[in-house]
Amino acid sequence: MVIVMKPGATSLQVQHVVDLVNEYGLKDHVIYGTDRTVVACIGDKRSVDKGAIENAPMVEKIVPILAPYKMASLEVKQDKSEIEIGPNKFPIGGNKVGVIAGPCAVESRDQLLRTADAVKAAGCIGIRGGAYKPRTSPYSFQGLGEEGLKILAEARDNTGLAIVTEVIGVEQLDVVVHYADVLQIGARNMQHYPLLEAAGKVNKPVMLKRGMSATLDEFLLAAEYIINGGNKQVILCERGIRTYEKYVRNTLPLSVVPALNDRTHLPVIVDPSHGTGHAYMIPQVSAAAVAVGDAGVIIHPLLDR
Amino acid sequence: MVIVMKPGATSLQVQHVVDLVNEYGLKDHVIYGTDRTVVACIGDKRSVDKGAIENAPMVEKIVPILAPYKMASLEVKQDKSEIEIGPNKFPIGGNKVGVIAGPCAVESRDQLLRTADAVKAAGCIGIRGGAYKPRTSPYSFQGLGEEGLKILAEARDNTGLAIVTEVIGVEQLDVVVHYADVLQIGARNMQHYPLLEAAGKVNKPVMLKRGMSATLDEFLLAAEYIINGGNKQVILCERGIRTYEKYVRNTLPLSVVPALNDRTHLPVIVDPSHGTGHAYMIPQVSAAAVAVGDAGVIIHPLLDR
Amino acid sequence: MVIVMKPGATSLQVQHVVDLVNEYGLKDHVIYGTDRTVVACIGDKRSVDKGAIENAPMVEKIVPILAPYKMASLEVKQDKSEIEIGPNKFPIGGNKVGVIAGPCAVESRDQLLRTADAVKAAGCIGIRGGAYKPRTSPYSFQGLGEEGLKILAEARDNTGLAIVTEVIGVEQLDVVVHYADVLQIGARNMQHYPLLEAAGKVNKPVMLKRGMSATLDEFLLAAEYIINGGNKQVILCERGIRTYEKYVRNTLPLSVVPALNDRTHLPVIVDPSHGTGHAYMIPQVSAAAVAVGDAGVIIHPLLDR
Amino acid sequence: MVIVMKPGATSLQVQHVVDLVNEYGLKDHVIYGTDRTVVACIGDKRSVDKGAIENAPMVEKIVPILAPYKMASLEVKQDKSEIEIGPNKFPIGGNKVGVIAGPCAVESRDQLLRTADAVKAAGCIGIRGGAYKPRTSPYSFQGLGEEGLKILAEARDNTGLAIVTEVIGVEQLDVVVHYADVLQIGARNMQHYPLLEAAGKVNKPVMLKRGMSATLDEFLLAAEYIINGGNKQVILCERGIRTYEKYVRNTLPLSVVPALNDRTHLPVIVDPSHGTGHAYMIPQVSAAAVAVGDAGVIIHPLLDR
Repeated sequence: MVIVMKPGATSLQVQHVVDLVNEYGLKDHVIYGTDRTVVACIGDKRSVDKGAIENAPMVEKIVPILAPYKMASLEVKQDKSEIEIGPNKFPIGGNKVGVIAGPCAVESRDQLLRTADAVKAAGCIGIRGGAYKPRTSPYSFQGLGEEGLKILAEARDNTGLAIVTEVIGVEQLDVVVHYADVLQIGARNMQHYPLLEAAGKVNKPVMLKRGMSATLDEFLLAAEYIINGGNKQVILCERGIRTYEKYVRNTLPLSVVPALNDRTHLPVIVDPSHGTGHAYMIPQVSAAAVAVGDAGVIIHPLLDR
Repeated sequence: MVIVMKPGATSLQVQHVVDLVNEYGLKDHVIYGTDRTVVACIGDKRSVDKGAIENAPMVEKIVPILAPYKMASLEVKQDKSEIEIGPNKFPIGGNKVGVIAGPCAVESRDQLLRTADAVKAAGCIGIRGGAYKPRTSPYSFQGLGEEGLKILAEARDNTGLAIVTEVIGVEQLDVVVHYADVLQIGARNMQHYPLLEAAGKVNKPVMLKRGMSATLDEFLLAAEYIINGGNKQVILCERGIRTYEKYVRNTLPLSVVPALNDRTHLPVIVDPSHGTGHAYMIPQVSAAAVAVGDAGVIIHPLLDR
Repeated sequence: MVIVMKPGATSLQVQHVVDLVNEYGLKDHVIYGTDRTVVACIGDKRSVDKGAIENAPMVEKIVPILAPYKMASLEVKQDKSEIEIGPNKFPIGGNKVGVIAGPCAVESRDQLLRTADAVKAAGCIGIRGGAYKPRTSPYSFQGLGEEGLKILAEARDNTGLAIVTEVIGVEQLDVVVHYADVLQIGARNMQHYPLLEAAGKVNKPVMLKRGMSATLDEFLLAAEYIINGGNKQVILCERGIRTYEKYVRNTLPLSVVPALNDRTHLPVIVDPSHGTGHAYMIPQVSAAAVAVGDAGVIIHPLLDR
Repeated sequence: MVIVMKPGATSLQVQHVVDLVNEYGLKDHVIYGTDRTVVACIGDKRSVDKGAIENAPMVEKIVPILAPYKMASLEVKQDKSEIEIGPNKFPIGGNKVGVIAGPCAVESRDQLLRTADAVKAAGCIGIRGGAYKPRTSPYSFQGLGEEGLKILAEARDNTGLAIVTEVIGVEQLDVVVHYADVLQIGARNMQHYPLLEAAGKVNKPVMLKRGMSATLDEFLLAAEYIINGGNKQVILCERGIRTYEKYVRNTLPLSVVPALNDRTHLPVIVDPSHGTGHAYMIPQVSAAAVAVGDAGVIIHPLLDR
C-alpha cells in the first residue's frame, strides 16, 4: 500500500499518517519526491481501514499494491486446481474441454429428460437447469423447487451427466446439495455473503458466477469466502458484464480468462449464453472461449423450441 | 411489446410469431412497413417468455413498451407515498428535507453514543450504522451483530433519532426488525430475492439501495417484490453506480431522482457518501441532492476520526 | 419508429404527434393498447428530428425500429465485401486470416526496418506503425511525420508488406495517402466528421477503428460517412471499449464480430493489443479473435524491446 | 510513479527495471516489502514510455502518482481563473452564476433572433447554437455554416448576449473565431489534437466539452494542449458520460465539479441538456448543477417548439 500526500503536506501531517500506519502494525517507508511525499507501507494490509487513512488531512490517495485475496491466489498455490464433477468425475481445469448445456429452468419432466438426452448425444459432460430461479420480476415463473431437482437427478441417472443447478438462498442449500453435482451461485448472489459462507461448509463443487459489474478482486474475494469456509472446490464462471453496449445482453470480456489464469489456481469457465443473449452468436463465441482458455468448459442453455 | 421481424421474413414466419403471441393471451396487430414487418402486441405481457419469441426464426428484436413493474408505478398510485420513520415519525417523501448520518459500522458503545449525540446536535433525523456488515473481504471486520443493534437502540432512546441499519440475510431479519426503525437492504442484496420476499412480510419501513449496476426497471422491480409481499413502506436510495470513472468510488447519477419521481410514488433519497467516496465532496454533493429532489433525505456517514 | 404516448394522453395530444409525423412525410398507424397508445410510423425516418417529437406533450419515448445506416448494411449489399491491401493485394474479408503487426510508432529507420523483417518472417501480411501519433499528452512523442512515412515505404519495398498507418487530421491526409496502403482512422477520430468526409474522397482502403465508447450504430454511421463520400473500401476494426474493468487497458467485446457480420457487408478485424494492453494476453486473445470471426486479420504491435 | 514487481522477481530483473528508469532520467528508490518489491521513481515522468517498463520481465504493474497535466493544475496556478465572455465581459469562474441557452442548431434567422430575445428576457448571459454541426449520421442537417454565424452575430448585436458556437474542424476555425465570442470544442472532438493545437493559437475563450468516456486526466490533458499552445482561456464543460443507463441520454456525474475544482484552476460549467436528454429534468438538474458548483454557468438548449 502506498499513501500519496497532497503537495504542501507538512511534516506533521506526514507524521500523522505514519502514526496511523504503525497503529495497524505496518512498517512505514517515507519517500520525498520532487512534487509529492509518499508513504510506502510494508506488512499485511488486509485488515487496514483505508477510509480512515484516506480521509486523514492532506492525503491525496491510497494505492493498493497487493491483491486482497490470498487462498485463491497463485502465490499461495502454484499448481492449477482440477475439480471433478458428476458421476463420471470429469476434471474441470485440466486440459480437456467439456460442455455443460441445458435450459434456463426445469419446466417439466418431459422437457428436461428430452433435453438431457440431446445434451448427452451432443457430447456434453453436464446439464444445467434451474429449479430455483432468481427472477428480476416477482411475476415470472420462479421454478419447480425440489420437484425440479428430482427431475434433474433422474436425468443424471439416465445419462451420467453432471447436474449443475443454482442455489439462490441459504434456505435452499441443503436440498440443492442433496441432489446436485455442482452448486451454481449466480451473478446476482456473488456478493451475498451468508450464502458464500454456507457454501464454504458443504462438500460439493461450487460454480461461482461473476457479478454483473464485479471487479476481478471482488470476484476472487467472493471465491475466497467459500475457500475460507473450508470448501476448495470453486469453479469461476465468466458470464458477461454490464456496459453501455446494447446489441448483446451482456458484454463478454474474454480477456478475463488469461487475466484470471495469471492470478488464481481456480479453474475458469465461460458462459456464452448469458454473455451474449443471442442464439446466433453461440457457436462462434463458444469457439472463442475455448481458444482463449486452453482448456475450459462452456456452458450454454439449449434453445429447446 | 413490439416484435420487429428481420427483412425478408416470410408470411409464415410472421404467422409463427403471431401464434406464439396469441398463445400468451395477447392480441396481435401486424404492421407492414417499407423495410420491416412489426407485430405489436396488446395485453398484459408480464408473464411472456421473451426468450422464446426473441429466438423464433427471423425475429430481429423485441421492444418493450410498458414498464415491467406495477404496484411501484405512478400509474397505479398517483399520490406520492410518505413513509414515517423513527419514534418521531419523520415523514420521508413529503416536503421536508431530513438527514440521516452515522458511521459505516457500529464499532463500540462509546463510538456510537458519541456519534449519535453529534448527529442529533447537527439537526439530523436518523442515525445509520451497520451491526451486520456485507464485507467484500472475509478478512474485514464483520460487525458486532445483535450487540451492535442494542447499542443503536440505546442511541435512539437517548436522542429520538430513527435507527437505520442493514440486514444482510433472511437469517438476521427477525433480530434486525426487533431493534431497527428502518431496515436497509444494501446494493449487493438488491436482487437477493429471498430477502426481498421476507422484507415484504414485516411491518417496518425498508430502505432499498440501488444495485451497483441496476437499471431503473430492476430497481423498481426489486421494490415491487417487497410491496408484492405486503409491505408498502419502501424508500428508494440512490448510492451511485459503477462506471469507468476512477476519481470517485461510484458515479452518482442525480438525474435518477427526477426520473424516479416521474415513474414511482415511492420516496427517493440519496447517499452522497457511497456515491462519491470522498469526504471533501459531501457538502456540495449533498446540496445538489437536495436541489435535484425538491424533498429528500440525505444519508451520509460521519467521519468520526 | 414507434412513438409511445404516456398513459392519459388525450386524443388531441395523439393527433398532435400524428401531425408532426406526417409533417416529416411518414405514414402513421395508431394502436390503442390496454395501457398505452402508440403511433407506429412507416416510411424513411432518417431525417426526422427526434427531439421535436420526443418533447411533444405526453410523449413517453421513441423507439427506433430501423438501423440508421444504409450503405454499410447487409440489406443494401448482401455479399460480403473483400478489400485488397498492399502490393500483394491480400484480401481482407474473405476466408483467409492475415496478421498485421508492428510498433506503436515509427521511432527510427533502424527500428522499423528490423521490425519489418521480423514481421515478414513471422508470416504477417502487413506492418503497422504511426508516423503521426494522436497523443493524450502534449508532452509525449508526436511521431516522425513524413520522415516516418518514408521509412514505412522503404519497409514495404523491402518486404512486400502492406503499410497501415494513422492519419490524424485532414491536413495530413494527402501525404499519408501518398505513402500508405491502408489509412487508419483511430478510435479518437471515429467521429471527426471532416476527416471521415475527406477519407471518402480518396482511393485507398480505410481501416476505421471503433471509438472508445461507440455504439454499433455510431460505428457503422462513421463508416457510412466514408462510403457516402465515394470510398467503399472500409475495414472495421474493433479495439476494445472503455468499461469499469481495470485489469485491461480496454474491454474487448469479441461478440461484436458476429454482431457486425450480422449487420454489415464490411470486413471486420480485431486489435487485441489495444483491446487488452498486456503482452502476455496477446496469443490467447488473438486465437479467440480468429475463432470468433471465421476469417479476419489481427493487428498487434510487436514489443520490440 | 511506482513500479510493482511480481512475486519471485530476481534481483537481476529488479535491476533491469532500475536501469530502464534511470535511462529516462529518474532516480530510483527500491523498497523490499514482505510480498513484493516495488521501485519508486523520483523525477519528471511525463515523457516516460510506460509500455516499455510495463512489459519488462516480472513487472506486475505501474502505478502513477503524479497527475500528467501541469499548466491546468492547481499546483501551478493556485488562484482560480476567471474568463470573461461576450460584449458584456461576464466573468465565468467567479462567484456569479450565468446561464447560456439556445437551440441545438441555427436553423433560420427568424428562429434564432426570436430565441435570442427570449434567452435575453430570461436573464441569460449567452446564447448557444450550432452553425457547423457534428452529426452522427451523414443524412442529418449539417448546419448553415457561415450564414449561421452571421445570424448569431446579429443576435449578439441585438441583445448583448455572448455567442457560444461549435467549431468542428481546423478548416472552420478562422471563420468561427471571426464571429464567435466563445469557441465550443465538442465532446467528439475532445481528443482531436490538431484542433486543440489550433485553438491554442487563437485569442478567444474556448469551451471544451468532456469526451463521452474521457477520464479527468484525459479531459485536463486536452485543456493542457490548448494552454500549451498559448491560449489560457479554457472553460471546462461537463456534459455527461456514457454508461449502461438508458433512461437518460447520458449519465451526468455532478461530483466531477468538486473533483475538478480540487485539481484545476480552470472554470467548470455544466450542460444539463446533453447530460440528461429530457426537457422535464432540466430545471431540477440545473439547480443541482448550481448547488454543486458554488458558481457556474449552465448551458441548455431552449426547446423552441
